[in-house]
Amino acid sequence: MKDQYSHEIISKTRTHEGLLYRIKHRSICNSCAMTFAIYIPDLKRPRVDDEEDIKLPMITYLSGLTCTDENVSQKGGAFKACCDERIIFLMPDTSARGHEEIEGENESWDFGTGAGFYVNASEERYKKNYNMLSYVTEEIMDVLKSIADIGARVDFDRISIMGHSMGGHGALTIAMRDIEKYRAVSAFAPIANPSSEDCPWGKKAFTGYFGTEDKEMWLKHDATEIVKSTEDFSEKKNFKTFAILIDQGDCDNFYQTQLYPERFVDACMEKKLNCTYNLRKGYDHSYWFISTFMENHIKFHAERLV
Amino acid sequence: MKDQYSHEIISKTRTHEGLLYRIKHRSICNSCAMTFAIYIPDLKRPRVDDEEDIKLPMITYLSGLTCTDENVSQKGGAFKACCDERIIFLMPDTSARGHEEIEGENESWDFGTGAGFYVNASEERYKKNYNMLSYVTEEIMDVLKSIADIGARVDFDRISIMGHSMGGHGALTIAMRDIEKYRAVSAFAPIANPSSEDCPWGKKAFTGYFGTEDKEMWLKHDATEIVKSTEDFSEKKNFKTFAILIDQGDCDNFYQTQLYPERFVDACMEKKLNCTYNLRKGYDHSYWFISTFMENHIKFHAERLV
Repeated sequence: MKDQYSHEIISKTRTHEGLLYRIKHRSICNSCAMTFAIYIPDLKRPRVDDEEDIKLPMITYLSGLTCTDENVSQKGGAFKACCDERIIFLMPDTSARGHEEIEGENESWDFGTGAGFYVNASEERYKKNYNMLSYVTEEIMDVLKSIADIGARVDFDRISIMGHSMGGHGALTIAMRDIEKYRAVSAFAPIANPSSEDCPWGKKAFTGYFGTEDKEMWLKHDATEIVKSTEDFSEKKNFKTFAILIDQGDCDNFYQTQLYPERFVDACMEKKLNCTYNLRKGYDHSYWFISTFMENHIKFHAERLV
Repeated sequence: MKDQYSHEIISKTRTHEGLLYRIKHRSICNSCAMTFAIYIPDLKRPRVDDEEDIKLPMITYLSGLTCTDENVSQKGGAFKACCDERIIFLMPDTSARGHEEIEGENESWDFGTGAGFYVNASEERYKKNYNMLSYVTEEIMDVLKSIADIGARVDFDRISIMGHSMGGHGALTIAMRDIEKYRAVSAFAPIANPSSEDCPWGKKAFTGYFGTEDKEMWLKHDATEIVKSTEDFSEKKNFKTFAILIDQGDCDNFYQTQLYPERFVDACMEKKLNCTYNLRKGYDHSYWFISTFMENHIKFHAERLV
């Protein structure tokens, strides 16, 4: 297993009483090399009931359009809270990069490179390299397991997921499809209803990755539609403890033109899901907004990951 | 007074329950336009003894080689603690920029543009544009006073100063020359003895800005030498409350080749100054180090700025 991903540690930097790794590896599902970052806090504050080979829970953070792992690691302000709460923070990239160029993938900032949308493409042109859904939910976990020092630290049974904008879309769709796998989900300004007519980002991405014929596919990757069409949430074993947190800035230019987080919140309420929604006065779509509320989000996850 | 600096608010962004301004203005002392950033927290947590027109204390943060105001604002992680402690955070640039090019100022990253060293140059070639000492201690304060919304918020009688690397040099030299003006000083990995033979950065900067004739001038801009040559610290009215905090990473490549913080600490101990020195195991010279200990530094200043 070790060899198939041929990983290379690009850097290993001490920060916030832990280590921040940047790791490059071969991605089989995306047919190219991929780079991600992971922050692992020290175990400086042992608890009386710590086992000898203690493993820590992990949050996967999915970034927004144009980002790499570096935006959130440098500007997100997540590591102090992760250190305090003893949580590992995983930061994947937002698309495949460095493969043989596909026509159309580098023409705009909201499609293709940096804009994988956390789906597995079905369109012929993209399906070799655009499989970010499999990548962030499965392959990257296998890569972590294949790196002895890191794999031994992660408790893969205690995981949750969060994200920003396109990454908020990714986190919500991934978690809501399988709430038993994830203890919690949170999002900053998520693209919450990408299959709708009034979401140009979603329309462009889904047209490119799925084509326009199979609208069922579009609905399967729309957080609001997933919640609406799921009948059995209350039968899931963690229905009572599973929780959702969304923060949205009211001065975010995309709030009422691309994101529509309230549609998702309404659907959750209809299904009696535990969903907390904070509309933040004066905040925009940027990391100035994210970093302000990151600690709240980490603590929200921590309560469900212990 | 208002007009002489012709200021322009480049951006005004909500973050950490406050506002982050970027402001461009005419600098008279540097004969060019300068840009700085300032974070001003809300007064959301009034105290029972708040006066009606409450003013907040301010920390000036001096950045290191090659930086602008944006490095610390984006990566420093200072604003949460500033919000909690109700402190304004001022982030000047590291040199004049955009003036008519001076021969030699753009040839290397450790001299000239981005490397003003917080001195007033005496060499003919640089003295028109390289007066960062006057800029960060005087002119920028006048600019703040000339902007009504901001000037009214700052309590110019409760100020302190901090910095990183070259900015640590700036903060220490500025504060130690006038401890009655500053309530406290702190530094991350400061260039603490730049006039010494074994500090290439200092030698290059001081040669360029002061020439090699006037070695007295070099000593006046060397934090260790300032402390050594000052006889009357104990007679200053705030001698007992004035405090110094220094953090240094032991994996910092520049620690024993450019910085030498212990020389400064030794000199302070000799003069019975209150100086706390933390050598941080495993940390390097980067913002990964700074952001880890920023909150500690802000709290250290806060205790002295109330």
